Amino acid sequence: MKLEMICTGEEVLSGQIVDTNAAWFANLMMEHGIEVQRRVTVGDRMEDLIAVFRERSMHADVILVNGGLGPTSDDLSAEAMARAKEEPLVENPIWRQRITDWFARNNRPMPANNLKQALLPASAIMVDNPVGTACGFRVKLNRAWLFFTPGVPFELKHMVQEQFLPFIRDEFAIQSDIAVEKLLTIGHGESSLAAKLEPLSLPDGITLGYRSSMPHIEIKIFARGAAAIAQLAAVTAEVKQALGTAVVAENRQSLAEEIHQRLYQSGLSLSVAESCTGGMITSQLVAFPGSSSYLHQGLVTYSNESKVRVLGVKPQTLDDYGAVSIPVVEEMVRGARELLGSDFALATSGIAGPDGGTAEKPVGTVAIALATRNAVYSQMILLAGRSRELVRSISSAVAYDMLRRELLNEAVIVDYSFIQRYPK
Amino acid sequence: MKLEMICTGEEVLSGQIVDTNAAWFANLMMEHGIEVQRRVTVGDRMEDLIAVFRERSMHADVILVNGGLGPTSDDLSAEAMARAKEEPLVENPIWRQRITDWFARNNRPMPANNLKQALLPASAIMVDNPVGTACGFRVKLNRAWLFFTPGVPFELKHMVQEQFLPFIRDEFAIQSDIAVEKLLTIGHGESSLAAKLEPLSLPDGITLGYRSSMPHIEIKIFARGAAAIAQLAAVTAEVKQALGTAVVAENRQSLAEEIHQRLYQSGLSLSVAESCTGGMITSQLVAFPGSSSYLHQGLVTYSNESKVRVLGVKPQTLDDYGAVSIPVVEEMVRGARELLGSDFALATSGIAGPDGGTAEKPVGTVAIALATRNAVYSQMILLAGRSRELVRSISSAVAYDMLRRELLNEAVIVDYSFIQRYPK
Repeated sequence: MKLEMICTGEEVLSGQIVDTNAAWFANLMMEHGIEVQRRVTVGDRMEDLIAVFRERSMHADVILVNGGLGPTSDDLSAEAMARAKEEPLVENPIWRQRITDWFARNNRPMPANNLKQALLPASAIMVDNPVGTACGFRVKLNRAWLFFTPGVPFELKHMVQEQFLPFIRDEFAIQSDIAVEKLLTIGHGESSLAAKLEPLSLPDGITLGYRSSMPHIEIKIFARGAAAIAQLAAVTAEVKQALGTAVVAENRQSLAEEIHQRLYQSGLSLSVAESCTGGMITSQLVAFPGSSSYLHQGLVTYSNESKVRVLGVKPQTLDDYGAVSIPVVEEMVRGARELLGSDFALATSGIAGPDGGTAEKPVGTVAIALATRNAVYSQMILLAGRSRELVRSISSAVAYDMLRRELLNEAVIVDYSFIQRYPK
Repeated sequence: MKLEMICTGEEVLSGQIVDTNAAWFANLMMEHGIEVQRRVTVGDRMEDLIAVFRERSMHADVILVNGGLGPTSDDLSAEAMARAKEEPLVENPIWRQRITDWFARNNRPMPANNLKQALLPASAIMVDNPVGTACGFRVKLNRAWLFFTPGVPFELKHMVQEQFLPFIRDEFAIQSDIAVEKLLTIGHGESSLAAKLEPLSLPDGITLGYRSSMPHIEIKIFARGAAAIAQLAAVTAEVKQALGTAVVAENRQSLAEEIHQRLYQSGLSLSVAESCTGGMITSQLVAFPGSSSYLHQGLVTYSNESKVRVLGVKPQTLDDYGAVSIPVVEEMVRGARELLGSDFALATSGIAGPDGGTAEKPVGTVAIALATRNAVYSQMILLAGRSRELVRSISSAVAYDMLRRELLNEAVIVDYSFIQRYPK
């Protein structure tokens, strides 16, 4: 089966938005053992859309088309497909009802142009979209099935997983004897991870892939075929062994998700006091439903006055050591934990940049602490040459990792190859 | 001039990395008034590369090819181009010397395979790369100039700005008479905005585009040609008039950026108390360098105890009205402002879902308040049928907008078409 993707939309073509849908889709297909062979990105011009549908339908067996199903005048995918196949647009009565119901259910008046979303090419087979008003559909042209999906990432993901994958499995008898294990790492570069894994001799059918989404690098272990799949667990254990403390989670999207799952199941509570990470730790945890069961509070004490008033940091400590220091971050973490008697607290204080650095404490200097009921652990790290965003996200990851290791009864503070620690 | 782009590389096609080069390039071209008309992404297979070079060279005048100029075995662009044109690869003596010098200057031994980077198609014209060992070049095939650039973003950017732009300007006598204005809106769907703008009669050369990046929808007003550009300011004013309170910023990426800029320049200070938004407001502001100058603190008082202990909310108020209520959010916002005597405070308390709703206060109910030195403003809204993420991001946007309107001395609370307000 030859799979291609067509991405539509002026804003994608013109770089107003980076096409994360395309990367997500190709990535998912690869995890199912299917390669996307070509991706074509075009804007919202009728003749370009018609041309690309006709042209690629001669070469591919399946084409995922993304975008252009909205209600506005620059949403042209359905009409372009109808013209490419030289057939009329026809209103789909089921979808008309769905749109009408959707607006009624949400107590919103339906703008007339939303009905456009029920117009499909005459030969189209409707594809359900349970989470939006854009109707998916598929059309056969020349050798290809063109499968139309909405540009909204959330809707695309639903439709691909619930409709597209089963469709290509049935239609092309794809065998999905592929399995994948994902290890999340922090604090080590791709080449340093690769160097550690090079000595391993992998069984036939097992391959490694790397994906960087800072502050994480994800290592994917693919097993193709029954024999390889049977060895996947053993190989995964070997890889974990070789990588040591770099591995922070298995089959998770992020370290925040790992922490959420562990705390959610534990009955233990957490308070967070953030300075340079500025709410990133708290906000990432709050993103998970159920986080209110363990997260007492997240105090972004950005100013010194706030550290004093809210967390009880001593003005003298701030004067003596400065806000970015081990003594201050330890007072912050104690204060945050004691306010509500939480089981744990995390605190950060650092210089995220681009300004504010000094010779003694350059940009990227961050103090991080963990408080438990019995102890306080702290470290000061230097993330030199990193952007403001990366200083914040790597610091958050290190803080999470301290808590994660404490929850596992492991040494709280470990070395990461690309993170320097003070004092050396 | 018809401009296209070909992106090569397995890791881009398969979604291991998101193609930021493509977005950067298209964006830059648009700022110079040139549209990229199609983008094709292919992997590192020789036959795919040859096919795409031949095929697109029949349609485009200029094709920027990105990637595949490195020294390793999967870098195939030069060889594929030579085969597409049926000519040999020839070593370029100038570039061979450049590579040799580069390694000597950096005190590194030169791996033999680096010399591969001096092999160009026989008819190629060398294009200088002042910042790397990959040699750029251009080749004419059929109607197109194919312009080959390295995949390393830093090297690509140098080559495009210093070589590609002057080349197309000379070759195609490009005039860059295009301008764009961007209006950021919140609280209204794309179709409702479109309905308001449909009655406007736009002058020739002016077009509208919509881009949804929730909680915002951005409206772009493009003007092409001197006559249209002269009318852009007047058209923008007309569009703003038609959209009324929906427009919250001009030429900004986000409402958070608008708030950051206004506060940063004002000398006024802000404290934030968040419950359901969970650090999102604080975290978005902290993302901007310089936010420490006005952001005193962001208190994510997720638990009732934290609202009482940190913000001074009365337990009786919590008992009488519940955490998600006007009286509680008003006590939160007063407490947050008074802690450090900030000029302003924002507070949110709501049910982000998917659980926790009741018949009286369903998921999506959010109380939002703004405190100034003289007054407290509050409202309770219902964001029905929205995801947890959207409840949080729309609530954050409404909070920002209350502060923005206060800073402009406008009515703090306004209606948004898709946001219901309590009590009706």
